[in-house]
Amino acid sequence: MGFWETIVPKYKEIIRKYLNDKDENILYQGQKLSRKLIEHQIAPEEVISLHKSIMMEDNYSARKIIDSFDVLLEVMLGYGLAYREHQSLRTEQL
Amino acid sequence: MGFWETIVPKYKEIIRKYLNDKDENILYQGQKLSRKLIEHQIAPEEVISLHKSIMMEDNYSARKIIDSFDVLLEVMLGYGLAYREHQSLRTEQL
Repeated sequence: MGFWETIVPKYKEIIRKYLNDKDENILYQGQKLSRKLIEHQIAPEEVISLHKSIMMEDNYSARKIIDSFDVLLEVMLGYGLAYREHQSLRTEQL
Repeated sequence: MGFWETIVPKYKEIIRKYLNDKDENILYQGQKLSRKLIEHQIAPEEVISLHKSIMMEDNYSARKIIDSFDVLLEVMLGYGLAYREHQSLRTEQL
């Protein structure tokens, strides 16, 4: 099973749990997932696309979709950090 | 007026237009905006946060919110490109 096939159910589960419990500890799992995604060179737009497809499949309400942005935000925070890290490396080298 | 204050209404307008017309040419404006955001070192998580707040404010339906992911995808594509560019620069230097 490829990396992506293992990620889809994990990401889905994090969203489902977060939307059910609104427990912020679950967002920490999003952070961990983010690191794995970056390690495996998954592009940020692929995460957006996955998020969209989960929202479509699971027929969430507008309220739930809006809440689900918290998970996406957490994952993108990891991308932001990695991006800034590369940027500062680049600046150092200029 | 700061950069961010000029971006918020622009991003809002792109979403509004896209949701009304579903015209893919509008997504091109998202690409252009993406480049500006990156230039001004706006983090990807800030874009997610802005997107969420627009969805909340404008009281969009679940269907519209799902459609709005196309705009977010377009913007994140720019971040993905910039990120990969930095990554390949870094690899070259290793």
